[in-house]
Amino acid sequence: MSRVQHVEVSVLPMERPSDVSALRVLLAEEVDARDVIAVIGKSEGTGLGRDQGRETADAAIRDVFARSLRIEPEAVADRICIVLSGGTPGVLTPHVAVVSRRWVPDDPTAGEGREGERQSGQNHKRLVAGAAHSRDILPEDVGRMAHIRTVADAVRQAMNDAGVSDPGDVHLVLVKAPSLTPEGIAAARGRGRDTVTSDLGIGPEGAICFSNDASALGVAAALGEVDEAALDDDVVRSDWSLYSEVAMTSSGGEKTHAEVLLLANAERAAGSLRIGHQPMTDILDQAAVDGALTNAGLPGSSPSATSADQVVYLLAKMIIPGSARLRGGRITLQDDPQGYHVAKAMGGYLLAATTGHTMSFVSGGERNSHQGPPEGNPLAAIVRLS
Amino acid sequence: MSRVQHVEVSVLPMERPSDVSALRVLLAEEVDARDVIAVIGKSEGTGLGRDQGRETADAAIRDVFARSLRIEPEAVADRICIVLSGGTPGVLTPHVAVVSRRWVPDDPTAGEGREGERQSGQNHKRLVAGAAHSRDILPEDVGRMAHIRTVADAVRQAMNDAGVSDPGDVHLVLVKAPSLTPEGIAAARGRGRDTVTSDLGIGPEGAICFSNDASALGVAAALGEVDEAALDDDVVRSDWSLYSEVAMTSSGGEKTHAEVLLLANAERAAGSLRIGHQPMTDILDQAAVDGALTNAGLPGSSPSATSADQVVYLLAKMIIPGSARLRGGRITLQDDPQGYHVAKAMGGYLLAATTGHTMSFVSGGERNSHQGPPEGNPLAAIVRLS
Amino acid sequence: MSRVQHVEVSVLPMERPSDVSALRVLLAEEVDARDVIAVIGKSEGTGLGRDQGRETADAAIRDVFARSLRIEPEAVADRICIVLSGGTPGVLTPHVAVVSRRWVPDDPTAGEGREGERQSGQNHKRLVAGAAHSRDILPEDVGRMAHIRTVADAVRQAMNDAGVSDPGDVHLVLVKAPSLTPEGIAAARGRGRDTVTSDLGIGPEGAICFSNDASALGVAAALGEVDEAALDDDVVRSDWSLYSEVAMTSSGGEKTHAEVLLLANAERAAGSLRIGHQPMTDILDQAAVDGALTNAGLPGSSPSATSADQVVYLLAKMIIPGSARLRGGRITLQDDPQGYHVAKAMGGYLLAATTGHTMSFVSGGERNSHQGPPEGNPLAAIVRLS
Amino acid sequence: MSRVQHVEVSVLPMERPSDVSALRVLLAEEVDARDVIAVIGKSEGTGLGRDQGRETADAAIRDVFARSLRIEPEAVADRICIVLSGGTPGVLTPHVAVVSRRWVPDDPTAGEGREGERQSGQNHKRLVAGAAHSRDILPEDVGRMAHIRTVADAVRQAMNDAGVSDPGDVHLVLVKAPSLTPEGIAAARGRGRDTVTSDLGIGPEGAICFSNDASALGVAAALGEVDEAALDDDVVRSDWSLYSEVAMTSSGGEKTHAEVLLLANAERAAGSLRIGHQPMTDILDQAAVDGALTNAGLPGSSPSATSADQVVYLLAKMIIPGSARLRGGRITLQDDPQGYHVAKAMGGYLLAATTGHTMSFVSGGERNSHQGPPEGNPLAAIVRLS
Repeated sequence: MSRVQHVEVSVLPMERPSDVSALRVLLAEEVDARDVIAVIGKSEGTGLGRDQGRETADAAIRDVFARSLRIEPEAVADRICIVLSGGTPGVLTPHVAVVSRRWVPDDPTAGEGREGERQSGQNHKRLVAGAAHSRDILPEDVGRMAHIRTVADAVRQAMNDAGVSDPGDVHLVLVKAPSLTPEGIAAARGRGRDTVTSDLGIGPEGAICFSNDASALGVAAALGEVDEAALDDDVVRSDWSLYSEVAMTSSGGEKTHAEVLLLANAERAAGSLRIGHQPMTDILDQAAVDGALTNAGLPGSSPSATSADQVVYLLAKMIIPGSARLRGGRITLQDDPQGYHVAKAMGGYLLAATTGHTMSFVSGGERNSHQGPPEGNPLAAIVRLS
Repeated sequence: MSRVQHVEVSVLPMERPSDVSALRVLLAEEVDARDVIAVIGKSEGTGLGRDQGRETADAAIRDVFARSLRIEPEAVADRICIVLSGGTPGVLTPHVAVVSRRWVPDDPTAGEGREGERQSGQNHKRLVAGAAHSRDILPEDVGRMAHIRTVADAVRQAMNDAGVSDPGDVHLVLVKAPSLTPEGIAAARGRGRDTVTSDLGIGPEGAICFSNDASALGVAAALGEVDEAALDDDVVRSDWSLYSEVAMTSSGGEKTHAEVLLLANAERAAGSLRIGHQPMTDILDQAAVDGALTNAGLPGSSPSATSADQVVYLLAKMIIPGSARLRGGRITLQDDPQGYHVAKAMGGYLLAATTGHTMSFVSGGERNSHQGPPEGNPLAAIVRLS
Repeated sequence: MSRVQHVEVSVLPMERPSDVSALRVLLAEEVDARDVIAVIGKSEGTGLGRDQGRETADAAIRDVFARSLRIEPEAVADRICIVLSGGTPGVLTPHVAVVSRRWVPDDPTAGEGREGERQSGQNHKRLVAGAAHSRDILPEDVGRMAHIRTVADAVRQAMNDAGVSDPGDVHLVLVKAPSLTPEGIAAARGRGRDTVTSDLGIGPEGAICFSNDASALGVAAALGEVDEAALDDDVVRSDWSLYSEVAMTSSGGEKTHAEVLLLANAERAAGSLRIGHQPMTDILDQAAVDGALTNAGLPGSSPSATSADQVVYLLAKMIIPGSARLRGGRITLQDDPQGYHVAKAMGGYLLAATTGHTMSFVSGGERNSHQGPPEGNPLAAIVRLS
Repeated sequence: MSRVQHVEVSVLPMERPSDVSALRVLLAEEVDARDVIAVIGKSEGTGLGRDQGRETADAAIRDVFARSLRIEPEAVADRICIVLSGGTPGVLTPHVAVVSRRWVPDDPTAGEGREGERQSGQNHKRLVAGAAHSRDILPEDVGRMAHIRTVADAVRQAMNDAGVSDPGDVHLVLVKAPSLTPEGIAAARGRGRDTVTSDLGIGPEGAICFSNDASALGVAAALGEVDEAALDDDVVRSDWSLYSEVAMTSSGGEKTHAEVLLLANAERAAGSLRIGHQPMTDILDQAAVDGALTNAGLPGSSPSATSADQVVYLLAKMIIPGSARLRGGRITLQDDPQGYHVAKAMGGYLLAATTGHTMSFVSGGERNSHQGPPEGNPLAAIVRLS
């Protein structure tokens, strides 16, 4: 009998950066650590490059898994994709979302059980997940075509791991790729190569943005959202008409390769979760929340009190628009040294005010991005169907 | 023939703190400077105590009116209530809202013209405004019972000026009162009196909060929202069950008395504007926006594209909740040194995402307040009826 | 044969908040963990109330000692006084200074060996240390007379522990005492008692300042710098003519009693360290560095390249002056939201520019304090004599 | 009879950004506005790109001169070089230094009067000043070789204006040049040209740094500090062995050409001022203050109370070192989001603690620069000789 995926997402609050008590209980009582393929979350802290809150949370999480899996903390990243975004401004609650995947016998009766959904025209697919590690990305390749191709290959591999062949079934691809460091730049120079930038920050010429955007274009190429032939070094952070609707990417100086977590829906899958997405057309597009929930399969036109219980996890990137005009009015977000912080706070507020959920993944702060459409932002929702 | 008020609200963008070009055009072409009773607005800048953006905007506005009215800039405040709130984080657009009031003949046909509204049970009242200057408030009285009584008297005077007798018709009372300064504290000591605090800031023991909250209780007392007999020095910033739903208050060290601007609806009034309010029950209560618009008289259950055109001006205070728990989740807003900035950004986002308007008055950042219910925030809306 | 103290101070850099590698080596190769009585230091991070860098460093240090001493991490504080100050702005290097104390036979030849010093009129005393834990300080007592008396008792106890009877031999008293928390305030109210403030912060009415200042007055009372009869609840943060020259105090909500570390010089002591102090008369008084080094026993009128090698550790608190005038010019430090950060950076710069040492203890950021003279700052130096 | 320069520098405090009362008095009673060639200063504010404090001060200063000279405010910049640096962190006092230049008859007796200086080997030269406006610098040329050459030409022109031929007599060259703007970048693209960067900020790839550094290399080329043949586009912000000891440069998006103010000493000059400089070898090199004062002609080895009265004005740029190591210790200044603010505060502290002067020009915050030697900072001093 063939086996299919049963993916669960457990959202756990953290009382302080080092608080992994809920995670310990989950691994002791509900989820086998060997089934965990990813930990996504928001940690309290500054949200800047050196964020001790995030580093503390990251170390605490690795430590729990190292003990559970009886491996070294350094080896945890080979097994589990950890994507922690620093800073919980506004109404965001520090938390982690644990993604676990079991392979269960394919139950034909489950298929029949959902026949009603199928007949009524509703989507009867269920959440599946795939992960992949890319080849190494050298400092001289970060933010350039080689980076794009390497991520695209890893995304295809993750689709394969998820058992998904139709890009239309993919609703979210989280990528964490290498950024630049002083050491990496020096190493590239030692090989007679330059790097795309020497700015290590998140500014418009910063290595973080170049890396995040090359990763996004890699996702777009793998999913056919852009034609790979249209891509070259020069389009990165330049031709904003090229983008992915489902990429949410980040980068860190400590990484040497990209990690990919892909979430999709599949016909033959167990469990009760489903994922959907709808990009925001601009930073005020709150209708996208409803759109993503509907896309995920929640009935009705607006999230009601009932459906709020069915919302499992929401994810958004909040990109600062490249223009200082929003719906005709001048805004000062680009001039705000706290703009990255404020952008995340607004994203968290959007998701909490529309659904009541404060444990959501809201990252961002880049100015312009190939993540989501020009002036817009990517947004995804995981829901539980009865 | 008796005369009634015709109140207009003109919302004008500012391209930089000193930009009063739109205001100049307004006064040259549309509004007589002698009819202006208040200027409300948001100026770009830090939003902190010493905010050069706000000071620049304030000076530029006074200068325009001084020239128009052929008076000294220092005398403008005697004629016009200026309430500028500093800081336009997020999606707020720097702007001013000019409130002007003309006395026009009471037109019985206008009354008939609105007979349809009356018969259909809709509110046929229109916006009126009243202003008042209080007696002086000494430093030793700031934030105490004498302050409360003085503001209450001024609010009653402003109701009289507005021609309103039913507190239920009052939807917004803006108060700007004295705060403490080192000089004021020294002067009080010289008289053998102490002051409510020596902290000049906006923290929980800060003079700004004590002043704002005494002003709010003054409004509540005048409007019968609380029983004046229930008030004494000790309830200020202590008994949060006492509050006003319609007070939005601010304070400044440079002031020696309170200024009051009261907005209400009245049966016998000209023009097409009407005001409504609905306090937010907590910081996520986005339904209050719709509630305030409905309360102001916009038909339908949710602000549609059509009704968005009818929205003239929105006002909210964003109070940081006293608890670190929001809908069950822990939030870090209280620990955030940028919390005051983030709170305003979230308020601006709320109003813009629900109505499309980025030129709104969003002030706040206090932790707890007698402005609005416990854990909640005051919110008002001015709309244009056809 | 009687025994005397031999106190050593080992200053160790930290490469990141959790880096305790140098500490591990010290405890493995040079210092017995059972001899360590205090760990003082600066950790990188925000320097604000919730500072994850400091919390991470604190936990890592406790963990090392718990393993070395084979006790629980929670029990480490009963054995070792840990005073970590958060934030290393400017030219400060993250580090810890480990204070260890051994009891060694009193060596008369050592006494003779220093006879030259004695005869030449130089101070022949050597560094000794004393520690004490106070009785519990209840929330309702924080920042008040009971707090002052409790700290004074603990300081006397620490003098006894150090074997010092002349207050003139005491050059530094570090105190870490309880501050207020929401829970503590509620508990006090439950007992029908109020607290000195409800502001938990470091502002002029903040609990941190009240606690730090009551501790400083406790030190001053124990050392006879002020007459205890001159003290009452009302002088705290009010009568700045009362102060200690040698108190450097801090406070934390997690503490229930005060910890005291006292550093002094004594005739009968082994080792080669000596301590001196000289308060800065104002924030620009760089001559105090030379004064403290000379007071500690370094010869010559200014710190030379030679004497720089003899400087072991420097400590200063940087209090923000209560006046906006400095040497006749207006400064904006009081209005600067980053003032606490800038004040520490200037203190670190002072010590590094005059001595070349970047691993110094520089805390502060309070506005006005009983630590050091009015408008001034306390400063101490530990040096190594040949 | 030939005429020589008599240059005066008047340092005036400002009580708020718009306070030009001292400047008004100066122009009414002491200095003819037509003689003013430059206004240098520090304005309170954020010190960031959009700094409303600086903009307010700038507008107020222009307004005063426009009235005095009976010209339009927009025309003031054609007559007077205005270099305001935003942000007065720490112990810096907001102020302006007004540089005025009169042409007076060359007095042979003055020459004789200084014969004693000449014979005693002391420098008998006096301060002279020269100013120049460069040709336009197009956005596509900013930060590149054409920018360097254009500034070099203007510096030579300013030397000519100052009447100085020996580069060794030049101790300070202030340059304010164009930076990039979104409009400028678009205009360059419209001409088929790219720009050196698209980052408008002060980061390591930011337009502000590229502009400041090309200006510094232009100064170095004109003064022969570097060989112009060694320069090309690629050395800018790359080969740090090329630098000027006397360049202090800034840039703004509003400018279309560079303004140069050159200060030097000359044999045939009237007045009692003289200028000197000595670059700091690293950020802790406080001996450079004494060096610059001595270089300017103050006798004695260290600035005494007496010589402090003779100090007229001090200027320094505080460049953040490119390395995270300082004298062997790790510092966190590069990771500090407030690093630019802290760097200026430390520079202001250095000058105030060594001389007692809080009204100094301290700008900076760039990471690495061709202003001053690698890891070092430029520093200059103007003194008054009897």
